[in-house]
Amino acid sequence: MSEKGVMRRRDLLTLIGTVAGSAVMYRAMTAMALAGESDFTGPIKLEGDPKGASVLILGAGMAGMCAAYELRKAGYKVQILEYNDRPGGRNWSLYGGDTYTELGGFTQKVEFDKGLYLNPGPWRLPYHHQAILHYCKLLNVPLEPFVQVNYAAYVHSTKAFGGKPKRYREVHADFNGYVAELLAKSTQQGRLDQAVTREDQEVLLEAMREWGALDKNYEYRKGLISSERRGYVSDPGGGTTSVPIPSDPMAMSDLLQSRLWGAISAGHIYEFQNTIFQPKGGMGMIGKAFGRELDGVITYDAKVTDIHQDGSGVTATYINAKTGGAPRTARADYCICTIPASILGQIPMNVGDAMQAAIAALYYDASIKVGLQFKRRFWEEDEAIYGGISFTDQPNAMIGYPSTDYFSGGKGVLLGAYAFGPAAFEYAAMSPQERVAKTVEYGAQIHPQYRDTFENGVAVAWHRVPWTLGCAAHWTEELRAQHYDDLVAMDGRIMLAGEHASRLPAWQEGALLSSLDAIRRLHQRVMTS
Amino acid sequence: MSEKGVMRRRDLLTLIGTVAGSAVMYRAMTAMALAGESDFTGPIKLEGDPKGASVLILGAGMAGMCAAYELRKAGYKVQILEYNDRPGGRNWSLYGGDTYTELGGFTQKVEFDKGLYLNPGPWRLPYHHQAILHYCKLLNVPLEPFVQVNYAAYVHSTKAFGGKPKRYREVHADFNGYVAELLAKSTQQGRLDQAVTREDQEVLLEAMREWGALDKNYEYRKGLISSERRGYVSDPGGGTTSVPIPSDPMAMSDLLQSRLWGAISAGHIYEFQNTIFQPKGGMGMIGKAFGRELDGVITYDAKVTDIHQDGSGVTATYINAKTGGAPRTARADYCICTIPASILGQIPMNVGDAMQAAIAALYYDASIKVGLQFKRRFWEEDEAIYGGISFTDQPNAMIGYPSTDYFSGGKGVLLGAYAFGPAAFEYAAMSPQERVAKTVEYGAQIHPQYRDTFENGVAVAWHRVPWTLGCAAHWTEELRAQHYDDLVAMDGRIMLAGEHASRLPAWQEGALLSSLDAIRRLHQRVMTS
Repeated sequence: MSEKGVMRRRDLLTLIGTVAGSAVMYRAMTAMALAGESDFTGPIKLEGDPKGASVLILGAGMAGMCAAYELRKAGYKVQILEYNDRPGGRNWSLYGGDTYTELGGFTQKVEFDKGLYLNPGPWRLPYHHQAILHYCKLLNVPLEPFVQVNYAAYVHSTKAFGGKPKRYREVHADFNGYVAELLAKSTQQGRLDQAVTREDQEVLLEAMREWGALDKNYEYRKGLISSERRGYVSDPGGGTTSVPIPSDPMAMSDLLQSRLWGAISAGHIYEFQNTIFQPKGGMGMIGKAFGRELDGVITYDAKVTDIHQDGSGVTATYINAKTGGAPRTARADYCICTIPASILGQIPMNVGDAMQAAIAALYYDASIKVGLQFKRRFWEEDEAIYGGISFTDQPNAMIGYPSTDYFSGGKGVLLGAYAFGPAAFEYAAMSPQERVAKTVEYGAQIHPQYRDTFENGVAVAWHRVPWTLGCAAHWTEELRAQHYDDLVAMDGRIMLAGEHASRLPAWQEGALLSSLDAIRRLHQRVMTS
Repeated sequence: MSEKGVMRRRDLLTLIGTVAGSAVMYRAMTAMALAGESDFTGPIKLEGDPKGASVLILGAGMAGMCAAYELRKAGYKVQILEYNDRPGGRNWSLYGGDTYTELGGFTQKVEFDKGLYLNPGPWRLPYHHQAILHYCKLLNVPLEPFVQVNYAAYVHSTKAFGGKPKRYREVHADFNGYVAELLAKSTQQGRLDQAVTREDQEVLLEAMREWGALDKNYEYRKGLISSERRGYVSDPGGGTTSVPIPSDPMAMSDLLQSRLWGAISAGHIYEFQNTIFQPKGGMGMIGKAFGRELDGVITYDAKVTDIHQDGSGVTATYINAKTGGAPRTARADYCICTIPASILGQIPMNVGDAMQAAIAALYYDASIKVGLQFKRRFWEEDEAIYGGISFTDQPNAMIGYPSTDYFSGGKGVLLGAYAFGPAAFEYAAMSPQERVAKTVEYGAQIHPQYRDTFENGVAVAWHRVPWTLGCAAHWTEELRAQHYDDLVAMDGRIMLAGEHASRLPAWQEGALLSSLDAIRRLHQRVMTS
């Protein structure tokens, strides 16, 4: 993906546009979502006997565990060193009773009720991410639909409509309506005669009327036609008390200047298109399932301090991540290293200058996620919001409603904040407690029920996560041109893998495809050497 | 809802537009979907003691069972007479082992595997249909998301693109792209100076670029930017083999003339907007749950042959629907009659001329639904289609993919046809076996896998359903003006309820709201008389 593509994605996701804090936030947010498609074409086949060749894998995230799983299956001896005391890496869910200590020493104890969770890292599985979907099926991880676009959710700007949020359906209907009306007018006034044949103009007019919900004069205005898109003041009913009352569209200028229209495109983007999935019970279920499958292969609490290759193999030195103690070593014929570049750059490793430079050049994005538990699912009970996302120009950027346990009537955990860039840095500078308090304050602007129903929260600022120091690799077109090939090339007996070694950064699919490509090349090397 | 509104809905849903068979089909289809919103404002409260007043309810569909449930709770003596041997009425799912005999005597034995089903009637619960959602919760009927819009599903016209289906995301992206490009051009050429201020034009241009996925010259063309909406020829990947290959947009004229753009608006319509639900295990679960709740209240197999009111009550005469036999009677102080007007018009009932005329005037729409079982879920396995709907201009009109048991790998049942109007009549004229065979033939144009994987099917033509003779009441603006008030007014001791007595015809929500309004008025009458 070229930087031009990258910039476009950024534009598309600039949901509230130039509204001060939000532009920054959304521009950064898209760094997380750069590209997101899969070139997975079916289960990998590594044919031929590796004759006892061994592979040392660093990191038990998606890339590392996928490599271990497939290489073991192909006959390799494999072992994984993992910094954390659990498998998954950024594939991670936080449940009640969990504790998490960030850089700087803040420890949070998660107080969520049973069954409720926050996914601090990835939370969505697009329908075309066929590698991750393949492994979910293989590992018996049940999936359920993730709601990305919800017409009942809100779009909110502190600078528009007196700070009162609009329903997504209102913004969507009015935007389409005015676009259709303007284009219909241009067509009728003969303005498109140069660009469009008369025959096509006739169809275009018809299309604008249908798609834009225009009236017979090709105008978008208050009435039953537009209310059938944007909703009513009073819905049609049954029996004697059933006459519907239409709602008032926003003025076109107000809508344009509000920039709320920026929220419409998110669901049109390839990775966010319906149908999207999530694992039941939390994204971390995938990491857990992989970990169970690789029982005995993974050494946990292993902090790698040195990676050294020689003519016959690769040795990693590691200490206990919690207790320190005496260094130990692990050795194999080859090494697949999935440690994030942000960490790897600090670990001595004798690879060539090109790979070293690539590792050093990669910047990692900041992001923040905050989970908030509430006494009741007021978004469902009071506002008919079932899953989906509300967008705001406040630093919390969005509110994600749980795409599970609908109508359950009990407590619920919202994603109270998911922000990037400066907003994420601001958040990271606060204590976890302050982050949660701020998030409640922002959310209450959209849902006043926050004030009476908030119970507890947890906040993960990715720049303070000790084992990544950021959420994902930030590639630019220039960086790609300069360093990508060097980053992914095999250096002696070492190969890198992970989302950073892909053209789908920040997606688990990128990590898996990078891993599959790495082991394919490794296997080829082994079979031909 | 006025006829103007009705006509617009019809237009909106004319998915393939004027393409011959389809226009007819979709125009009719919308009759099913006229209006669809709810004015439910919370559980009904019938205060005060009815002092033993009794109500005879005719029909154990949604309206009848809702009335029985709420009236019993308020202290009334209630009984229901039901034609079928099961509760639910059009709330109905067909499972393996079920048999169904239609008018004309054709009996179908459903051969679906365990867990698979067809909903011959309603299949969706919009998020704003708060009455039906309320009763689902009350009756502990678990719901799961229904996928309406799936960007991976197909839009197909036999008359465009050589009969080759397009993915929804391609049609959607290209339509938005060309609309944005045309409007951006008009703006840049100063064509909108009369209608839009310069300040707003600047924002509009920016909006068109983002929303339409235009390039920096405000053009929609082949590249990574448009592929990020419409999909790639080869998706970006990981490691060394990861460079994406962009796809080619359709030519604007081809897209316009294909009329495939008509499919885009469906998901924008209030009732079809995300988030939508379905009961787990089939729509019929709601009817079954209501039936269990009303155990002992419902007399099944009761075919009503006469309804007679006098100064003190209402008497219904009925016979056994299966065996005939001696007429029996049921009597109560009042009657709520939910029998469809198409049937009720044939039953002697001493109400006034106005109500009689209203009943006689109501035409019932034709529709057809065909369920097809396949050996494997090829739509998921081969085509990454998880739930949602493909649209076609063939008489089967659409293919609905199951919004449940994703990735289960086993067999699956598709909704192979859901058509209205002439196509439905054509279908109804065939034997069930022929209907199924035709549906397989149409579907194979989109999914060649049909040929090798089809196992069995069942076809319900609503004009041949003995207890409705159609799928739902067809209201026009003229009919509403002339007859609606007379239809819903209390006539002596008799009141009508059901989807036909609402402004949400063909929706279960309409049936419930009609019922709630009827019992509210009945209770008021009882309390003041």
